Amino acid sequence: MAGIAIYPGSFDPITNGHVDVIQRGALLFDELVVAVGNNPGKRGYWFDLEQRTDLVKTCCAKLDNVRVIAFSGLMVHAAQNNGANVILRGLRALSDFELEFRNGLANRDLSGLETLFILTEPQNIFVASSLVREIAQNRGDVSRYVPAAVNRAIAEKLGAP
Amino acid sequence: MAGIAIYPGSFDPITNGHVDVIQRGALLFDELVVAVGNNPGKRGYWFDLEQRTDLVKTCCAKLDNVRVIAFSGLMVHAAQNNGANVILRGLRALSDFELEFRNGLANRDLSGLETLFILTEPQNIFVASSLVREIAQNRGDVSRYVPAAVNRAIAEKLGAP
Amino acid sequence: MAGIAIYPGSFDPITNGHVDVIQRGALLFDELVVAVGNNPGKRGYWFDLEQRTDLVKTCCAKLDNVRVIAFSGLMVHAAQNNGANVILRGLRALSDFELEFRNGLANRDLSGLETLFILTEPQNIFVASSLVREIAQNRGDVSRYVPAAVNRAIAEKLGAP
Amino acid sequence: MAGIAIYPGSFDPITNGHVDVIQRGALLFDELVVAVGNNPGKRGYWFDLEQRTDLVKTCCAKLDNVRVIAFSGLMVHAAQNNGANVILRGLRALSDFELEFRNGLANRDLSGLETLFILTEPQNIFVASSLVREIAQNRGDVSRYVPAAVNRAIAEKLGAP
Amino acid sequence: MAGIAIYPGSFDPITNGHVDVIQRGALLFDELVVAVGNNPGKRGYWFDLEQRTDLVKTCCAKLDNVRVIAFSGLMVHAAQNNGANVILRGLRALSDFELEFRNGLANRDLSGLETLFILTEPQNIFVASSLVREIAQNRGDVSRYVPAAVNRAIAEKLGAP
Amino acid sequence: MAGIAIYPGSFDPITNGHVDVIQRGALLFDELVVAVGNNPGKRGYWFDLEQRTDLVKTCCAKLDNVRVIAFSGLMVHAAQNNGANVILRGLRALSDFELEFRNGLANRDLSGLETLFILTEPQNIFVASSLVREIAQNRGDVSRYVPAAVNRAIAEKLGAP
Repeated sequence: MAGIAIYPGSFDPITNGHVDVIQRGALLFDELVVAVGNNPGKRGYWFDLEQRTDLVKTCCAKLDNVRVIAFSGLMVHAAQNNGANVILRGLRALSDFELEFRNGLANRDLSGLETLFILTEPQNIFVASSLVREIAQNRGDVSRYVPAAVNRAIAEKLGAP
Repeated sequence: MAGIAIYPGSFDPITNGHVDVIQRGALLFDELVVAVGNNPGKRGYWFDLEQRTDLVKTCCAKLDNVRVIAFSGLMVHAAQNNGANVILRGLRALSDFELEFRNGLANRDLSGLETLFILTEPQNIFVASSLVREIAQNRGDVSRYVPAAVNRAIAEKLGAP
Repeated sequence: MAGIAIYPGSFDPITNGHVDVIQRGALLFDELVVAVGNNPGKRGYWFDLEQRTDLVKTCCAKLDNVRVIAFSGLMVHAAQNNGANVILRGLRALSDFELEFRNGLANRDLSGLETLFILTEPQNIFVASSLVREIAQNRGDVSRYVPAAVNRAIAEKLGAP
Repeated sequence: MAGIAIYPGSFDPITNGHVDVIQRGALLFDELVVAVGNNPGKRGYWFDLEQRTDLVKTCCAKLDNVRVIAFSGLMVHAAQNNGANVILRGLRALSDFELEFRNGLANRDLSGLETLFILTEPQNIFVASSLVREIAQNRGDVSRYVPAAVNRAIAEKLGAP
Repeated sequence: MAGIAIYPGSFDPITNGHVDVIQRGALLFDELVVAVGNNPGKRGYWFDLEQRTDLVKTCCAKLDNVRVIAFSGLMVHAAQNNGANVILRGLRALSDFELEFRNGLANRDLSGLETLFILTEPQNIFVASSLVREIAQNRGDVSRYVPAAVNRAIAEKLGAP
Repeated sequence: MAGIAIYPGSFDPITNGHVDVIQRGALLFDELVVAVGNNPGKRGYWFDLEQRTDLVKTCCAKLDNVRVIAFSGLMVHAAQNNGANVILRGLRALSDFELEFRNGLANRDLSGLETLFILTEPQNIFVASSLVREIAQNRGDVSRYVPAAVNRAIAEKLGAP
């Protein structure tokens, strides 16, 4: 399909589930803008905005029509500033559903942009950044859930045990 | 966006919720194929396939890039036969979610076609063909939930009270 | 509270969960009209309308401000014909939620009547007429889930094992 | 209906969804007590208790049988101190359901007071104080979701951009 | 673990999701009784009880501590007649949850037997007999979802296209 | 059943719902290890690890095959260090479901240990440590929800009103 889609998230850190959505989204649109956000209402990210953005860039380096940006403020402004004409989101398990619905309607109210939802692969249904953080902070192995570059960044962040 | 999307359903009958998805979907794709299906496993439709298809055609007559077809058998075959490169579905309330997820993954397995989900307008969240049938069969007024042509077809079907 | 509430259902058969809602609803309103319905779209009841209504009457005999009626057609018409100014429904588990929401909004559209929902006692959360029918049809003991009169009616219906 | 209902919440800030419940609740009861609470376990409100209460009062000024109070401690004590004989809550989307169920049963255990749930208008289903705070803190327009007085209070709170 | 578990279902037909639960359950218990049931309240199975039982037997032939039985009537009676001291069920997606909860509590009421739930592999989360039937009846390929013996039985049942 | 099960949680504090799971779990396994955890990612427990562990020990004192331990770090390491060959969890309401599913699959990935879920008694479905904390911090009576020893510990912690 022609058109530019924006795929926003906090990517703290990017997981195999995110990569799955990015790879499949890149096949559907002329360009996919992966937008790494800073939510001012949120207390404390694990990785800072620069690190999160760099890791996303590393994981998307081979995808020609994917562009990675960082943003703060309203996501729909980042969408408009980057020429996106649709928002892309991955749907995983049910717990996402209502928040995604709420955000999708609010974003349409704020900007006129529609949100299109794509399905996550079943094996990634339960892979979430929060799960990765919990296991890694307890010194567990997260290499099944994240790209190799993220696994190395986590090991470096946590230092020698 | 360029590309052809297929929007399948049984449309028994088409409601304002369906029309909402069709109108907004038509803005997102070069062409939207509305595909009215006959599910062999289902017991008894209220309107037959020809009537359902005709009502959808009437309701979409003013939308230039919408084409209405009838199909039986696997939906993904109808999608492929009509050149669709993506499946469009509306997401309403939560009860849709798991069935849509299941069907979306199965359709990807069967055909490689992705399903993109679009949000229904909140005022249409609870508008469903089953609700329309229930109220109409009890001689209640369904004019809030269906296009005028459908309302007339229902009145005709039910005859004078 | 003053006012007349209608508590509609198919009561096929009435369970301890229904009785719980009726007893507590009767304390909240001047009068509670328990309305036993025949849904024309439904295939086959276990007990017929007269039996279902009689069993509800038996179970509510000691509640002075409870009146039991049978109805067919739209429930809101029965509500209006019986002077109800509000609809009462019990909320059990989650699976009820969306259907109740849909019906509540449709009934407000059709009649202006609001629906008020009351919580079911936890021990009755999973007690449903469908469960009673399934167990009884397999000759299991349902005496935990239904009033004694219903248990006798079921035994009589099923005959000697 | 006769009787006094209490409608508790944190109203941080009051939204069009709350106003919808208050207006419809006021038609159902002799008096509706809107109770603005301070939950000691909660970290940081956006507006303080006095501001939240004043905004609710402003938004309810034209409703004769609505009284607005502030409370801290257990809500059921506020209910009893204000003569309420029932608790009123709005049901929106599914995510509310289990928490409301839990609170409703606990409040019945603590006080004997029943909770009655009323349906939110579909267009308000996704309107929540948390959504308003998120958008406003990112300098987005929330005028669709809150009464004019709240919109002004937010603009004042956030100052010139 | 020592002990005999019963794993009941209608297996119409047995899928890879069922096989996954059986294989993993067989590792947890001394003996696993797979119980193929006939629910008198259900309208029409796709395969009859004998065919369903034979297919389950074929798929479990290499599992030494798995025994396959057919039953009708109450499942807990089959459990007791076969010496089971616990019921095993697989949990897939959310839609199973409430029905499983209801049945689990009812079975405890009826027999004192606890139900233990095991998680389905993510790739099997959306694999259900109903999906297999729908696709196969439309002449789609179900070989991803069922063991080879089931695939052959379906082809035979449907005959040449 | 033979075998050692681990039942992990934060037990802040232990409730009647936990005790119900422990009592029934103790009947199913040779030994049940109740494991009281410290999650490093969590902000602030109400009772510290020693108090929580002591209260669990007090409440399980009469159960011969129940052993209580405290742990930090990954739960699956505690499981392996204590010889557990299965993880036991109670399933309450729906809100637990997805988190439990996610954790169960992650724990299988990390350790090969399966999680078995047991149903909570309906009367305990809405009893949660968070509810107990909320009510107690507002000086409400929680004696319906916790064992007597916990009730005394809470009274002591909160001091004279």
